[in-house]
Amino acid sequence: MLEERVRQIQPVSNAWRKKAKERLDDLTKPRGSLGILEELAARYAAIRRQVPLDLPNKEIYVFVGDHGVVSEGVSAYPAEVTTLMVKNFLIGKAGINILAKSAGANVSVVDIGMKEDLRDAKGLVRRNVKRGTENIALGPAMTRREAESAISAGLEMADRAYHQGATMIGTGEMGIGNTTPAAALFAALLPANPQDVTGRGTGLNNQALKKKTQIIRKAMEVNKASLNDPVSALAAVGGLEIAGICGLCLGGAARGLAVVVDGFISTAGALVALRINPLIKDYLFFSHKSSEKGHDIFFEKEGIRPILDLDLRLGEGTGGAIAMQIIENSVRLLNDMATFAEMGIEPGA
Amino acid sequence: MLEERVRQIQPVSNAWRKKAKERLDDLTKPRGSLGILEELAARYAAIRRQVPLDLPNKEIYVFVGDHGVVSEGVSAYPAEVTTLMVKNFLIGKAGINILAKSAGANVSVVDIGMKEDLRDAKGLVRRNVKRGTENIALGPAMTRREAESAISAGLEMADRAYHQGATMIGTGEMGIGNTTPAAALFAALLPANPQDVTGRGTGLNNQALKKKTQIIRKAMEVNKASLNDPVSALAAVGGLEIAGICGLCLGGAARGLAVVVDGFISTAGALVALRINPLIKDYLFFSHKSSEKGHDIFFEKEGIRPILDLDLRLGEGTGGAIAMQIIENSVRLLNDMATFAEMGIEPGA
Repeated sequence: MLEERVRQIQPVSNAWRKKAKERLDDLTKPRGSLGILEELAARYAAIRRQVPLDLPNKEIYVFVGDHGVVSEGVSAYPAEVTTLMVKNFLIGKAGINILAKSAGANVSVVDIGMKEDLRDAKGLVRRNVKRGTENIALGPAMTRREAESAISAGLEMADRAYHQGATMIGTGEMGIGNTTPAAALFAALLPANPQDVTGRGTGLNNQALKKKTQIIRKAMEVNKASLNDPVSALAAVGGLEIAGICGLCLGGAARGLAVVVDGFISTAGALVALRINPLIKDYLFFSHKSSEKGHDIFFEKEGIRPILDLDLRLGEGTGGAIAMQIIENSVRLLNDMATFAEMGIEPGA
Repeated sequence: MLEERVRQIQPVSNAWRKKAKERLDDLTKPRGSLGILEELAARYAAIRRQVPLDLPNKEIYVFVGDHGVVSEGVSAYPAEVTTLMVKNFLIGKAGINILAKSAGANVSVVDIGMKEDLRDAKGLVRRNVKRGTENIALGPAMTRREAESAISAGLEMADRAYHQGATMIGTGEMGIGNTTPAAALFAALLPANPQDVTGRGTGLNNQALKKKTQIIRKAMEVNKASLNDPVSALAAVGGLEIAGICGLCLGGAARGLAVVVDGFISTAGALVALRINPLIKDYLFFSHKSSEKGHDIFFEKEGIRPILDLDLRLGEGTGGAIAMQIIENSVRLLNDMATFAEMGIEPGA
């Protein structure tokens, strides 16, 4: 399924991008004066192959996984918080629920790798591949087959969104300890020095940060034979929710959907997807620059400008939900502003 | 009226800011992980003296003025475009209309200094103080009394918003040529070197930019006796719409409203207001960093971080409308997220 989907991915349409730019240049404003909003609208048009554009129909997928490496003390919160936060998502009282509602986006919560089996949790999408990863400081997080299953669950969610009529999908995640595998993936796949991409996560002090960096170095040493290929690197030092996000990015691109990538962890999933098929880059909207150390190195190395910079470090898809509103604004401007011709004004600059 | 309003301005409430921060720390997220959104919500609570917060009731005022200095060739568009754009605002097809609708904000368009008298324009708020400023390269833009009248029109709009139940007001403007007086005000009141705050406006080439900088130097030389005091500097090298924005900022603060400041021109009006009464700083939300050269120097010198950086340079209030959505999101998060106690989670970090 993975290879088939990766093969299906087409480049976005430069012809539709051009049509969008022509319309943007005709709108009653100085050329280019809407800055990044013009780029967002043009790229969305290139993805959706439409001008004017239907308003985005938005779905956010929050993938949830646990991490064996938490036993090394890499997080300020205990692993049980993953489960408690899932309950919070399902009653609609977490940050992502509030922001998604504000953006008019639907939220689905996917158990892709939770330790605890929430059998009776109403509304939870059950696609558990493994009950939490193994400790990456001691060996691989999961088998390659498990990684592929988790990517496939992400592909399936993209298909589900597509069949439900979504045109824009957002990535989100929850998993206590998941800045550790995310940093390891940045180090392996950007590549970067582990200490440059390891941050304080939910709030580590200096000593704990130092220890976390050492754990990441150890994980990379233990798994060094697997770090050359994106999928095996994901299996070795990644996480199940990160694999789900990777699949959502690939599946979204294959289905011609815009994919709005949240913060540090989501970007790690997107990075694996980009290394599997660089063509997806034009389908991805990187919503914000997280305050988690190392996120900026990704943007610098990949030549990408994130939409927002609000010092967010919550994850869940929160930054993505806000960015969806900005992209929707850009679409409304393209669709609804008067043109110079309509107003009888000569375009100036 | 101006002096009375300036005297009425109270500091924002640190007690309510503290209550907001306490609630934010209790929400189900790592402390501080919502970054700038937490600062926005806490400051809005300090202004509104409430926790939880009523959702913002939003009004945007677009002040319109013409500029005598346009005869010097400082703009890529002819002065007549001011009038055409006002018609565009009134039929609801300009950038600000689209974005304000998306943010749930009402838009009022105020003729404060238009050259043309649009007697029959339905919906236009008629507060014309003067039919366009004089050419600042030859003498003062207006008399001090005219500047005070234009500030008073802004104060009146803040009062009107207050009486209509608004809790958040946005600044906007239209006036062909108005980056020239705005840059002159930055140069006079920050202070800054004219060449560091003079940009391309709606799209000048290098030669025209050089000429514009010379015109600003000349305006400052001709009016140098008037540049020491904020109101006389505004009268000397400013604009009527900039004076209206100054009044809206002061009046909003006096009425306990949050004031969302748009881009380069709006910031010039806010700067005059800040120099009249520095207490208003905590009432102002600077929405975005414009791509117009010199806006960043304001933020650096005043120690302010704008909410967005989207390379906008349209004005009208467009950046402010987008920022209103971000601030509203911060309010919703403060109000609606579950607390740790509700979820049975021990706050970690």
